[in-house]
Amino acid sequence: MPDSAPLAAAKLAPKVEELRVTTGSFPASRKVHAPGQLHSEISVAMREIDLEASAGEPPVRVYDTSGPYSNPAVETDINRGLPELRKPWILARGDVEFYAGREVKPEDNGLRRNEASAVSLFDRARRRVLRAKNGAAVTQLAYARRGVITQEMEYVAIRENLGREKLRREGAVDGESFGAAIPDSVTPEFVRDEIARGRAIIPNNVNHPETEPMIIGRNFLVKVNANIGNSIVTSSVAEEVEKMVWATRWGADTVMDLSTGRNIHTIREWIIRNSPVPIGTVPIYQALEKVGGKAEELTWELFRDTLIEQAEQGVDYFTIHAGVRLAYIPLTANRVTGIVSRGGSIMAKWCLAHHQESFLYTHFREINEIMRTYDVSYSLGDGLRPGSIADANDRAQFAELETLGELTKLAWEDGVQVMIEGPGHVPMHKIKVNMEKQLEECSEAPFYTLGPLTTDVAPGYDHITSGIGAAMIGWFGTALLCYVTPKEHLGLPDRDDVKTGVITYKIAAHAADLAKGHPAARERDDALSRARFEFRWRDQFNLSLDPETAEKFHDQTLPAEGAKLAHFCSMCGPKFCSMQITQEIRDYARAGMEEKSKAFLERGAEIYTDEHGRPRAAAE
Amino acid sequence: MPDSAPLAAAKLAPKVEELRVTTGSFPASRKVHAPGQLHSEISVAMREIDLEASAGEPPVRVYDTSGPYSNPAVETDINRGLPELRKPWILARGDVEFYAGREVKPEDNGLRRNEASAVSLFDRARRRVLRAKNGAAVTQLAYARRGVITQEMEYVAIRENLGREKLRREGAVDGESFGAAIPDSVTPEFVRDEIARGRAIIPNNVNHPETEPMIIGRNFLVKVNANIGNSIVTSSVAEEVEKMVWATRWGADTVMDLSTGRNIHTIREWIIRNSPVPIGTVPIYQALEKVGGKAEELTWELFRDTLIEQAEQGVDYFTIHAGVRLAYIPLTANRVTGIVSRGGSIMAKWCLAHHQESFLYTHFREINEIMRTYDVSYSLGDGLRPGSIADANDRAQFAELETLGELTKLAWEDGVQVMIEGPGHVPMHKIKVNMEKQLEECSEAPFYTLGPLTTDVAPGYDHITSGIGAAMIGWFGTALLCYVTPKEHLGLPDRDDVKTGVITYKIAAHAADLAKGHPAARERDDALSRARFEFRWRDQFNLSLDPETAEKFHDQTLPAEGAKLAHFCSMCGPKFCSMQITQEIRDYARAGMEEKSKAFLERGAEIYTDEHGRPRAAAE
Repeated sequence: MPDSAPLAAAKLAPKVEELRVTTGSFPASRKVHAPGQLHSEISVAMREIDLEASAGEPPVRVYDTSGPYSNPAVETDINRGLPELRKPWILARGDVEFYAGREVKPEDNGLRRNEASAVSLFDRARRRVLRAKNGAAVTQLAYARRGVITQEMEYVAIRENLGREKLRREGAVDGESFGAAIPDSVTPEFVRDEIARGRAIIPNNVNHPETEPMIIGRNFLVKVNANIGNSIVTSSVAEEVEKMVWATRWGADTVMDLSTGRNIHTIREWIIRNSPVPIGTVPIYQALEKVGGKAEELTWELFRDTLIEQAEQGVDYFTIHAGVRLAYIPLTANRVTGIVSRGGSIMAKWCLAHHQESFLYTHFREINEIMRTYDVSYSLGDGLRPGSIADANDRAQFAELETLGELTKLAWEDGVQVMIEGPGHVPMHKIKVNMEKQLEECSEAPFYTLGPLTTDVAPGYDHITSGIGAAMIGWFGTALLCYVTPKEHLGLPDRDDVKTGVITYKIAAHAADLAKGHPAARERDDALSRARFEFRWRDQFNLSLDPETAEKFHDQTLPAEGAKLAHFCSMCGPKFCSMQITQEIRDYARAGMEEKSKAFLERGAEIYTDEHGRPRAAAE
Repeated sequence: MPDSAPLAAAKLAPKVEELRVTTGSFPASRKVHAPGQLHSEISVAMREIDLEASAGEPPVRVYDTSGPYSNPAVETDINRGLPELRKPWILARGDVEFYAGREVKPEDNGLRRNEASAVSLFDRARRRVLRAKNGAAVTQLAYARRGVITQEMEYVAIRENLGREKLRREGAVDGESFGAAIPDSVTPEFVRDEIARGRAIIPNNVNHPETEPMIIGRNFLVKVNANIGNSIVTSSVAEEVEKMVWATRWGADTVMDLSTGRNIHTIREWIIRNSPVPIGTVPIYQALEKVGGKAEELTWELFRDTLIEQAEQGVDYFTIHAGVRLAYIPLTANRVTGIVSRGGSIMAKWCLAHHQESFLYTHFREINEIMRTYDVSYSLGDGLRPGSIADANDRAQFAELETLGELTKLAWEDGVQVMIEGPGHVPMHKIKVNMEKQLEECSEAPFYTLGPLTTDVAPGYDHITSGIGAAMIGWFGTALLCYVTPKEHLGLPDRDDVKTGVITYKIAAHAADLAKGHPAARERDDALSRARFEFRWRDQFNLSLDPETAEKFHDQTLPAEGAKLAHFCSMCGPKFCSMQITQEIRDYARAGMEEKSKAFLERGAEIYTDEHGRPRAAAE
């Protein structure tokens, strides 16, 4: 069971010794590692859940985003950061160089000159900054195009491939994938090809070697992003690092640090150094901090410097709202909720103040140069996404999407990996066209959507209003779902909200995988359903997305330990249990019943045989 | 604000004076009553939410399921029951008669002969039992076919019609209804016609005159059912009555009493006498109690007696698993989760034990006679619904559905109102065919589905796994969604679980209404979105499905009362607020900007005008 860190409520600047996070294995679970074939040095971490002996079933292997924190065999130390798993792979390619890097400035943290940091600094003494040599593209896209299968590519192939061969043998897969090309099993070559086509990305900055590689694309498992980050109102370093670890524990595949207050640079450093998953940011937030919140004072030079600052730290993908063009801004004036994207509104304000086209748009190819130097992926931001049902699928939204399609091609020309951000608030009947238009305009670059929320009437429950939309758009083809927590529109998520958001979105992603017919998806459902049917309560808890909650809910009604061995539950009690009755039916019927039924149906369903095998008239 | 009753945790048999329930109005809300045109005696209750003066908007009228409990002007008394709203309407039709009714037997409550009840009895001294005279059908279906528009029909027409004409004028409605025939505004004649066709039902037993009429059908607002009920393991009268009131407070349109322990008859009496919404039951549960839980000892005579017992009390719809035919049972033997419906498994066990066709099937027309005598509606049960993703849409499930289609026609022949129950556990890609097949097999009789759950891997979150499926199948045409609480598969829902389940399903139903293009649906979304955009925090809370939670979540981050007047929130703080920036953009842009944009786009989107109106080159 996990050690609960006492940090979530701390509001004070943390001391170093307080930086503890949630660790420990999941119940009945072990870390297992699968070796590479092409690259013997890789070792892909997964989780195996052991079942009760009475099941007579092998352990269930599940995708594991939690990194070393859930491995009791590994001692983690937040003050030292995670091991640099990918460092040797990166260096062995021979196309990067160490260099001094940019010096951290007080304004990176919102500090005045000579003001001491109120929060502890991460000790970077043993770290040096990497970049591409000679302006090369050190991106997975560039390697893929050259026919190179990197360690990262083989890693994700093995990681994605859980249980597929077994399921294929059983012929159990069906689904509707809307034109996706999900293979029976994932090969490293398939991964390379998908990346080369731009249909998938592996976000992994050369300066974030701590990540366990993961892939985002329509032909892979649907992934989930969790947003964390402090704000001017609340939060601390310790809270944010724990939120990152906590979110990945419950299944976040990527994490965005959306911090906006002071100490942005320092908090980000702590998060990146300790994150086993890719970290994304919206650099314009920090840039705006540096100009005291005055959007009109932003400049390309200051923004460029911020990109380099963050790329050197190891941010794996940047949300860049380069599609918010000057001409589109007036299209939002009659909206019910105008521009609700923070980045979008900042850029809109800048454009109007200067009467100029967005500097993100005009300097896009210069941004490409930075992205390819570190292998930072684009997350092309949807700054004009609808903020209400009323504004869904309007001209402003789609005009921006068309521009993001143009920019995708420019990024690809320069060897940069790209995904595209999407809405927002969209009623169910308008979701599918979002996916279709994105695939068409953006040439199948991965789609990364926020929700969408399917109604505006339930603040406090927007993980649910959006989980509905997320499951649907994930089914239709979205590769990465950005979670929404119960606090959306109302406040900052705490630890519980982060967990609820992540679990809700794991449900949406998994429901999408099932509906797409992903070959590996159904194994866990079937194992859990068998456990449920056979009253293996422990297996049912352990196979669930949240074993703690499942067990707690069970115990609220039947707390006795013996009840977990009972062949009934609190819903019906022992007399009424339908599962138990079905077991009796099955035992009763097993001997020859199925054949009798077949024969019965073949005869025309009017005659049945009694217990002695004699035909009798149906009792209609 | 509501008075929280201290009953939910009580495990002891209640004394009469303890029977208190949650009452009180919603914030900024008033009960309003709309009069009938055809029937001047009817007065349709709705809720109006007042907005802040700064909004400059009229109150928002919303559908209200909470009955008199949320009306501070009405004094309710659980010991007396609700006023008999429909009694004069029923009597005025002249086709019913009072009669002595069946005497309550000890076994109705699971008591031994001469054993005293441990729970208080509801005082029925002022109540007498009604039934049809001379074997007539006193059903809304029979009246509708004869061209009669009853008070109930006009009531639901007015109730459904919230705000439609206004929205139609604004031309704001779009949607995809998959062949439904949702009118611009609901007339009493439209209601009559839908009922006559069997496409909608008004469940309202002549012995439950306390209900405020509501309609279930594909061309009306999607409705939500909440299940309550004690079990052998836990619960009391007080808890169940409060759960009923609590569920309708948050939006349950109907309530099913699924009690299975002792005192079933008494608990049901308390619930019905105090319920403003239709009450459904599964009579086989009580019948099974009467034979000590031994399914094979069930008889038609005992079941028939139980139907009369419950019909005389006023149960509005019965789940009858008459489609579980003997021949279908073996089709479940190879399922992962067999038969998971309690009623289905009881009948399957009976069929196998006797090697006979189900007595529900063979005596179906005799059941019709009872149903039409009291206007009890059928909810034809899906006893063979899938209990796991693996079993979805299998032959057993669809064979039963075909039989339910046959039975629908038989019920209609005898003038009985019918709806059809549906799954269960179904992955997203298999949901739509369920709806299509139901419409076809059952001649458009209303569909009433449990979820469906779109994955099995998240016990503890099955309100969400099923909320996804419920929203989708509601969109496709399901008329009534049976809620699932977070405790599904694990334990009995408590008060918080009931609320979470109801709100989740109100979200699903409302998202479905929006997507279908229901003319009245979007008004609340738009009003809330305007409030959000204009930082009318109070309006945002008050317009939400759960004002208490919305306000609580807001206050967790920014508790000061002044923060509810602030033009920013905790997510971004004052500097970063995108909504505030958009307001500035709007103010800035309003004067002529829209026209400039139009002109700009007409010129080919390459030239923009500066603040002095002079053309300038776009800054690309």
